[in-house]
This record gives sequence, structure tokens and C-alpha cells, in this order.
Amino acid sequence: MPQPASDLSAPVRVPRGTVRVDSLGRVSSDVLILGTGLIGTSLGIALSRKGFRIQLNDPSPTAQALARDLGAGTLLDSTSPDPTLVIVAAPPDVAAAVVADALERWPAAVVTDVASVKRIIHEELVRRGADLSRYVGSHPMAGRERTGAGAARGDLFEGRAWVVVPAESSSRYAVEMVTAIAHAAGSAVSTMDAAAHDEAVAAISHMPQVFASLVAAQLRGLDDRALALSGQGVRDVTRIAASDPRLWTQILAGNAGAIRDVLVRVQDNLGDLVAALDRIDRGDGIGGLEVVNRTVLHGNAGRARLPGKHGAAPTAYEPVTVVIPDEPGSLGRLLTDIGEAGVNLEDVRLDHGLEQPFGLAEIMVLPAAVEHLHTVLTEQGWRVLD
Amino acid sequence: MPQPASDLSAPVRVPRGTVRVDSLGRVSSDVLILGTGLIGTSLGIALSRKGFRIQLNDPSPTAQALARDLGAGTLLDSTSPDPTLVIVAAPPDVAAAVVADALERWPAAVVTDVASVKRIIHEELVRRGADLSRYVGSHPMAGRERTGAGAARGDLFEGRAWVVVPAESSSRYAVEMVTAIAHAAGSAVSTMDAAAHDEAVAAISHMPQVFASLVAAQLRGLDDRALALSGQGVRDVTRIAASDPRLWTQILAGNAGAIRDVLVRVQDNLGDLVAALDRIDRGDGIGGLEVVNRTVLHGNAGRARLPGKHGAAPTAYEPVTVVIPDEPGSLGRLLTDIGEAGVNLEDVRLDHGLEQPFGLAEIMVLPAAVEHLHTVLTEQGWRVLD
Repeated sequence: MPQPASDLSAPVRVPRGTVRVDSLGRVSSDVLILGTGLIGTSLGIALSRKGFRIQLNDPSPTAQALARDLGAGTLLDSTSPDPTLVIVAAPPDVAAAVVADALERWPAAVVTDVASVKRIIHEELVRRGADLSRYVGSHPMAGRERTGAGAARGDLFEGRAWVVVPAESSSRYAVEMVTAIAHAAGSAVSTMDAAAHDEAVAAISHMPQVFASLVAAQLRGLDDRALALSGQGVRDVTRIAASDPRLWTQILAGNAGAIRDVLVRVQDNLGDLVAALDRIDRGDGIGGLEVVNRTVLHGNAGRARLPGKHGAAPTAYEPVTVVIPDEPGSLGRLLTDIGEAGVNLEDVRLDHGLEQPFGLAEIMVLPAAVEHLHTVLTEQGWRVLD
Repeated sequence: MPQPASDLSAPVRVPRGTVRVDSLGRVSSDVLILGTGLIGTSLGIALSRKGFRIQLNDPSPTAQALARDLGAGTLLDSTSPDPTLVIVAAPPDVAAAVVADALERWPAAVVTDVASVKRIIHEELVRRGADLSRYVGSHPMAGRERTGAGAARGDLFEGRAWVVVPAESSSRYAVEMVTAIAHAAGSAVSTMDAAAHDEAVAAISHMPQVFASLVAAQLRGLDDRALALSGQGVRDVTRIAASDPRLWTQILAGNAGAIRDVLVRVQDNLGDLVAALDRIDRGDGIGGLEVVNRTVLHGNAGRARLPGKHGAAPTAYEPVTVVIPDEPGSLGRLLTDIGEAGVNLEDVRLDHGLEQPFGLAEIMVLPAAVEHLHTVLTEQGWRVLD
């Protein structure tokens, strides 16, 4: 598989064109964005604000005009200067073809793409004999539940992970340029080869998406009385099941092998659990409880590995639960009081009760702050649950 | 299976003892709670506040003394008056035995239990020849990520669903008393027979719990670079995987048949998907894309069936995303400003970015309020993402 490190020690080959990297690492140059959906338009807005000159092109005249009107850049035409960087923000199933065309049409430009899958794009480019020294893959890990230029935001990438995926023959110059663009968009950069990227996202993103969909699909046949019992658990598990089916069909198909491998591991565990529950149900539960218990314990262990805020190790926060009237401003007054108490709120979860005119706010704070906060809020008239 | 409606038309049989149901439907009488863990202690606190006289008993002297000190009631002793209602808040695997003992020991009392599974308890009571006219099952659908009396809260049940599960021979009197207790604790009551309850919670609660655990279990083997790419999706899917393994082993084993039936349906869908991905990976993708697309579409459809706030039909809210400094009080100031703008905040999600000193607050409001809120907040100096 591609080893991104191999070419990073090679001399930097500076292509034609005026590329200026300033002291902040910003590339002040011409960037062409091909594809003005959610990601392409958002990148255009973000990079325009950082001083890049952005050109836009999309097969849909309406989509590219909308992106222009949203401040994502100017439209590509025959007078446009040659781009220093081309960002292909086309759907995953056409990204390789668009990258190959761009590498040919702009022989001095570095080309990247933003698809959520990377190996099939790399393989297709190799098959087409593309000049991979000027190609570096990207995966900005940002999205929304809505699609299209109209949903674009200039800050979509701020604080998000952006995986830079060099090919084995990518030049150091190309890698540095794409990395600089990711930083300019506000992202935190990780560098991986295509296979490592596809395996990582299969496990951390695509597999959870599949199970959110499979769990949610079971709700289709439930009667309303059962649905009325739904709590925060099933809501959280199925939230991302609302995602765009066209995009996700392409992503799942585009990373089919890696996702299948993770799903088969879950399938094995699920098969063991079904067999154990079946034995328990038939009254022949020997060993069955161990399998059930192990399932929950392994879930505990895996969940505990997710990194916390700012990528740091997870910190255990304690909840302080406060009753809030369901009217404008009450949550704000509560959080103002928390701030004035000098307590740093780590997270907040709102829970509106069934058949209740009020809601509960679960305020997550450091354990050392719980007692102080409880006292202060009670003194100020808040109803704090104990 | 038990038909709860059958006996509801029978004459109300009032047992011995002084039972007063006031005009608000409150049973002002002696309630004995057997088991002072999270649920028993929380109920004791809630019902004590409503004027019930609560007696407490637990096999652990420490647990029952802690519950008493937390205001859940007084300890059961030889001078305690006979209870009108006994609430068995023991672990699911011993609940039936404790209910049967209570029905014998207090022959005038109505007895309920609070276990998350109901059919096996009913079957065990039938096997033991218990007097089911005085038994009604309960499932208050409330819990926390922590267990034990020390985690108890008097408001744990407010606004939560509480399923009342009559046996076929439960008297109307017993059903009404347990329903009144559920209302007194602040819950929204649903009535179902044991089989319907167990099937409903298998699908809406236990199955999502299983898949949260199975997905989270796959994170155990991931390297840190892959884990660093985790976003809100995998966090939401796996949140409830942090739940108590001892309790969940009992719940899953106690509803083994119904859960197995739901898991088998998911297993079938998963098998189809794995086969489709395998065909796509081998380049023989005919029909494979249809299966992948159907998986995502069915997930969309199921997710859309979850009821919204206050049990109403889901309303589509729009997010307004605002940058907040990571310091005490800033979120409170933001939400105060939102309240003063006259906008009702429907939900809020905090997202701390990677390698960023600030966070993003995603404010969910009615679509009609988005533009006004964006304008007002921008005027007040907030950085609103667009």
C-alpha cells in the first residue's frame, strides 16, 4: 500500500505559477473548486475569507451560481488564471474521473479531492496512469444533515478532523499545500495512507452509520404504543440514521471491503449473542449469561476509549440536573447563574419530559464543582434535583 | 397472554386497611418499598414529598440506612403498620420471589414491582400460585448511568413513561392504585399486558442497547489514530454502551426471547448487507447497491417515526450555530441573549472542536425564528456561522 512518508524527504518541486506561502503557512493563490455542493461551497466561503482567490465550477448552473452568490468565489471561465490548487468536491463515485481530468487540464496544479473514501479513488487514478506526484487525497470530516450549496457554512471545517492522504508518489510540495489548505479551513490535520484511512473510517464512522440505520429500520414496523416508550437511548443510537441516502450509498459502496470486514466481526458477536439468548429462552442457559455479560462489558470498554473534549483523554463529569420552565430565556438565566458561580459547564443536555410543561437541563461539570453549584443554584431559587 | 382489560369491569374489591384516595387521585397511605437501590430510593424520596408514609427495607443495612438518610422514608420494623402498597424494587432476577413473599406476608396489600422485564416475573408468580388479583407489574422507564441509593433523585420519574402491566386477574382496585402511584411520581402512564410490554421494550430499548454495545466493542481494538477521527456520530451511537453490565445482563437475559426475535430480524438485514458489500468489493455488484441504498432508506423511515418533544409528532427544527468562548458564563450569556430575543430554544448541542480554544453551540429553533435570531445575535457581537 502507499507509504506517505516515502516521498516526503524528496526535494520540493515547485511548479509553474505564483504560489506564496506566508509566515502563517497560508497559500495565497488561485484555488479552483470543482463541485459546489455542501462541502465545495463551504470550502469556497472559508477560503475566500482567508484571502484565497476562489474559482467555482459545477455541472449544475444553478448550484454554481448559488455558491457564487453565497460568497464562495467567482465562476470559472476562459479568462480565469490557471489554478495552483484544484479541489475536487464531486460525489465519491465520480471523484477519480474528475481528479484525472483536472491533473491533465492543469498540468502545473496540485489536485486534491474531499471524498469520504480514498482507496478506490487512488486505485482508479493509478489505473488511468495519472500524475500522482501532484495528487494528494483529502477527507475533511465535516458534514451536515442537509446537503447542497444552500446548506453551506464557512465555518463547517473549524475544529474538525481533516485527513490528508498522500499517494506514495505525492510530492512533498503537494502534501504541504493540501495540509496548508486544511489548516486554513480551520481543521486539525491527520496524515494517513489510503488503506489506513479507509480502515479507520470504516470502523469509526461507516460501521456506526450502518448500525444506526439497521436499528432505526426496526422502528418502521412498531406500533405507536411501543414508539411512545422511546427514550433518549434509542434517539441517540439512531440520530445519524437520518442521513442522506444517496451520499451514504456511495460511501458504503466505495469502502465496501473495509466495512464488510468490520461488519463481519460484529456479525460474529451478534451471532454468539443470539445463540446465547436462544439458549436462555429455552431454559438451557449454561454459558449464555457469560456471553450476554461479555457483550455489555466489551461495550463499556470500547466506549471508554473514545477521546474526550479537545482530543484529550476522557474526563468523568458529573451531572447536576435542574428543572427549567419551558419558556424563552429560562435556560439562559440558568446558565448565566452557572457562569456567575464560576463553574465551567462542560456539556449540557436538555430533556423535555412527557406530559410535563417543563424540561430538565442536565449540566455536566467537574465532580469537584457539583456541591458548590448545587448550593448556589438552590439559593438562587432553581429547583435542583438531588 | 394476559388481557388486562378483562377484569377492569369487575367490581372493585377494597381490601382491609385504610386507603384514602383524594380528589387528585393520590393514595394517602402506607407504602413499603423493598429494595433501596437507585429506583427504590428515588421512589421513596418522590412519594415522601407527596405525603405518603414510606417504609424501607433492603438486604443491605448500609443501603437502607443511606436511603433513610436521603429522605426516602423510615425503616421497616415490627411496629410498622401494615402497608397498603408494597413496591418491590429488587433486581429483575429476584423480583418475582420478593413479590410472592410480599403477597403472602401482607395479605391485604397491593404489590407491584419495577423491573424492566415483565413476562418472566408474571410467569414465575403464576408458577408459585400467587394471588394475582393483588399484583400489578410496573416499569418506570427512568434510570441513570449510576446505580445505588447514593445516585437517587426524587425527580427521577418526572415526565418519564411508566408502563403499568396488569395481570389478567389483577383487580381494578390494584390497577388504579398502581396507576395513582405512577402519577404521583410524576410519570406518564401507559397500560399494556406483559407480553406487549416485553415486545415493545425489546424493540425500543433493549435492541438499541445491544447495538450500542456491539458497535462500542469494536472500538476496543482500534489504534489511537483511528479513534482520533471520532465525531459526534459514533459518540451518539455508543453513549448508552456505558451502562451498568450487571443490570443489563439481567434485563437482556430476562427478556431473552423477545430480544432474540428482534435481533434475528436485524441479523437478516445485516447478512443481506454484508453479502451485498462483498459482491461490490469483488466487482460483482449487481443488485448490491440496491441493498445498500435500501438499508439507508429504511433507516431514514424508521428514524422519522420517533415521536418528538412532549410525545407530539416530530417538528423539524433548524440549527443556528454560534461560536462560544470556552470560559465560564459565555454559554449563559448567549442563551440569555436568545431568550431576550423572544426565541424559544428547542434544544442545544455543544461541540468542542479539536485543537480549538472555543466551542460551537448548535441552537435548535423553529425554522421561522432562524433569520431573526441570526440578526439579533450578530448585532450583539456573537459570531454566528452561516
